[in-house]
Amino acid sequence: MRFDADTTAAEVRERSFSLQRAGRDISGLLWTTPGADGPRPLVLIGHGASGSKRDDYVVALARRLVRRHGMAAAAIDGPVHGDRTPASVVELAPDEHRRLALLRFSQLWAGDPTMTDEMVADWRATLDDLSSRPEIGAGPVGWWGLSMGTILGLPFVAAERRVEAAVLGLMGLTGPTQARIAADAAAVRGPVLLLVQSDDELFCRADALALFDALGTGDKRLYLHPGRHSALPAEAFDASVRFLVEALDPEHRRRRRGT
Amino acid sequence: MRFDADTTAAEVRERSFSLQRAGRDISGLLWTTPGADGPRPLVLIGHGASGSKRDDYVVALARRLVRRHGMAAAAIDGPVHGDRTPASVVELAPDEHRRLALLRFSQLWAGDPTMTDEMVADWRATLDDLSSRPEIGAGPVGWWGLSMGTILGLPFVAAERRVEAAVLGLMGLTGPTQARIAADAAAVRGPVLLLVQSDDELFCRADALALFDALGTGDKRLYLHPGRHSALPAEAFDASVRFLVEALDPEHRRRRRGT
Repeated sequence: MRFDADTTAAEVRERSFSLQRAGRDISGLLWTTPGADGPRPLVLIGHGASGSKRDDYVVALARRLVRRHGMAAAAIDGPVHGDRTPASVVELAPDEHRRLALLRFSQLWAGDPTMTDEMVADWRATLDDLSSRPEIGAGPVGWWGLSMGTILGLPFVAAERRVEAAVLGLMGLTGPTQARIAADAAAVRGPVLLLVQSDDELFCRADALALFDALGTGDKRLYLHPGRHSALPAEAFDASVRFLVEALDPEHRRRRRGT
Repeated sequence: MRFDADTTAAEVRERSFSLQRAGRDISGLLWTTPGADGPRPLVLIGHGASGSKRDDYVVALARRLVRRHGMAAAAIDGPVHGDRTPASVVELAPDEHRRLALLRFSQLWAGDPTMTDEMVADWRATLDDLSSRPEIGAGPVGWWGLSMGTILGLPFVAAERRVEAAVLGLMGLTGPTQARIAADAAAVRGPVLLLVQSDDELFCRADALALFDALGTGDKRLYLHPGRHSALPAEAFDASVRFLVEALDPEHRRRRRGT
């Protein structure tokens, strides 16, 4: 892992990193407590389609987990997004750029069966490296990713036993990889919070409920709020943080085990 | 209002009360902070069918609101329940008693159109009296009632503008009073938390979602957990308390208004 920019603001250190895998760069951001010493919980954040690891809500969630709860957080760019944006698109205006990223992702989702496995491998390589660093260590790992962050994140959560708890949502049991999503959902064993928007224009409520039903874990809950796909309310982020803290924070885990 | 038993344990004062209305007794329990001086938030708790104001979960919720959050709480018996149990049933074994209460309530729900209005009037009379007491005062009022506590509570919440926030659930847009439920749901204006059990054998999930859709307030959320009607998990109670505190507690209200 190679670190580039390194800034600290409001008690949170943010570093950009890149990591070689399969002949290309994984491009990510890492947020930690300045001077921290591991092990501590690490939350991996998968951004949504048309965004990147630098999306406002990704950064805000990561900083909150670090500053208020002493965790570490990391995000990497998904396929054709962020630093993985094809050169032909980089020059476009932001709106057009976002529209094309969404379109390109949809094409890959429908047409490239290796995309999901490649992203799972990217996350695994990232986790391998991060958990070997003294400021993070092999602490409990959580996942937060909605929409594309669930399309690509659910397979990672299902495949990676180190991920103990996951916030998923804005997605349903549907789409080109539906069969895989069903199988991956059935394989999930840890606690899951599924966030659903009642008027989601991209993934209908019935498909989201079917995804909830398909989750193999009994430790699951679905929070439904009114509004469209992108209108996730602040309280859903509050609930995400509370859920991850209760699942991953050593103090909460001790209390739950009664030790 | 006449008070009978008065006990204080673990920082919570519990008093039983009765109140004459329409020629019969409303029978209730009131929980307050010993030595409290109002105004403070008051949560009214409607118990489920086959139970009473003394149900373990009613008492536990009330005591928690008082002890940890400085609120007041009150519960009254529903029709044919608790102290309103018909004399012919009182002598029966508890299991048989509960079965008959459920049956009698179902008959009333289907056959007596005055039942709901009578219960709304009971709650109004109770609220009138409680809010005039110095240890409670005219503070913000919340509602918590699931199943029968929603069947009878939603009409109260819809009719009574003093109720500012409500936890409802384990019920759907169905049953003999369905048309009224739809109209009452549409009239609700304050924040609502709707609790739903995914495998509810009494009120199916689709009907619960229809009730969520019917709620006229935009400030609503539905929390879905796995399990049957009576298997509401502890985290749903935690969420209830958090929701009521955020909606009613003066400190939270000030913060929300940004003052």
